[in-house]
Amino acid sequence: MRSDAGPVFSREFLSAYISGYADGEGCFSISIAPRATLAVGWEVRPSFSVSQNQDRAEVLQVLKAYFGCGSIRPDRSDKTLKWETRKLDELVGRVVPHFVRYPLLSAKQLDFERFAIVCLRMADGEHRSRLGLISIASIVREMNPGGKRRYNADELWSSLLRKQVKG
Amino acid sequence: MRSDAGPVFSREFLSAYISGYADGEGCFSISIAPRATLAVGWEVRPSFSVSQNQDRAEVLQVLKAYFGCGSIRPDRSDKTLKWETRKLDELVGRVVPHFVRYPLLSAKQLDFERFAIVCLRMADGEHRSRLGLISIASIVREMNPGGKRRYNADELWSSLLRKQVKG
Repeated sequence: MRSDAGPVFSREFLSAYISGYADGEGCFSISIAPRATLAVGWEVRPSFSVSQNQDRAEVLQVLKAYFGCGSIRPDRSDKTLKWETRKLDELVGRVVPHFVRYPLLSAKQLDFERFAIVCLRMADGEHRSRLGLISIASIVREMNPGGKRRYNADELWSSLLRKQVKG
Repeated sequence: MRSDAGPVFSREFLSAYISGYADGEGCFSISIAPRATLAVGWEVRPSFSVSQNQDRAEVLQVLKAYFGCGSIRPDRSDKTLKWETRKLDELVGRVVPHFVRYPLLSAKQLDFERFAIVCLRMADGEHRSRLGLISIASIVREMNPGGKRRYNADELWSSLLRKQVKG
């Protein structure tokens, strides 16, 4: 009767499928960068992204529709497209609950769990205090050791330990 | 009560998860190579494989257990591990039915469909006749055009069109 439509997949199928896809192609990352305008001197930026070759980007559209957030754009580092969300309310309200309910089966789950803890602490505002940021930075340091680090760890630690910030 | 066990996932969760994972990391490939000992002169070898970095190879164990076949070994081309099955009865009996029931959401599904047709034709013995092999080679030619071709297409076609083989 619906010859114009593709197959219809259940929400449960999509949920598990997306976790499987993200286990291979997804990236939970948290960058910490100097930001002079912030009292604590550093900005914490969590991101969940999934990359795919441009010729098979259909799943990125599925991800965008499923989570109801994020944007798709070319990845500057290579010839892929990337769906990404960086907004804390979307990460805490949509991404984290999904992967709690439909967990990853590989060791990437450990990265997700650290990512989730940092997002939840940020939702409580902990990244705005020195002690909270030290705690967050300790967690981030354990994440994805093979990945590219966007900040100078020594600089971060000496700054946090030196800085006179309320917290 | 089962503090020693990890979380228990339903078969439906695993099925959808595996399709999602395979959409990113899986590869349906068919090689056609000269084989003088075969009457038709060429051997058709289908393979389904999934690769992963060695530090996150848990999902390859899940795949091996789920499909109940295949083997895991280092990929010669890079620093990954690869789970792979090449046996026709396993491909026809386990892999193809899985992806028929739990399809891929990206354009890789088209590769799977061509792969499935070739496997089913091989199960009927069509790869042993010249006309059957011509038909199979026509399908293989459409698969994964970005991939590495393991045979010389001109050589295959001229051989098949020239060869006097029953078929």
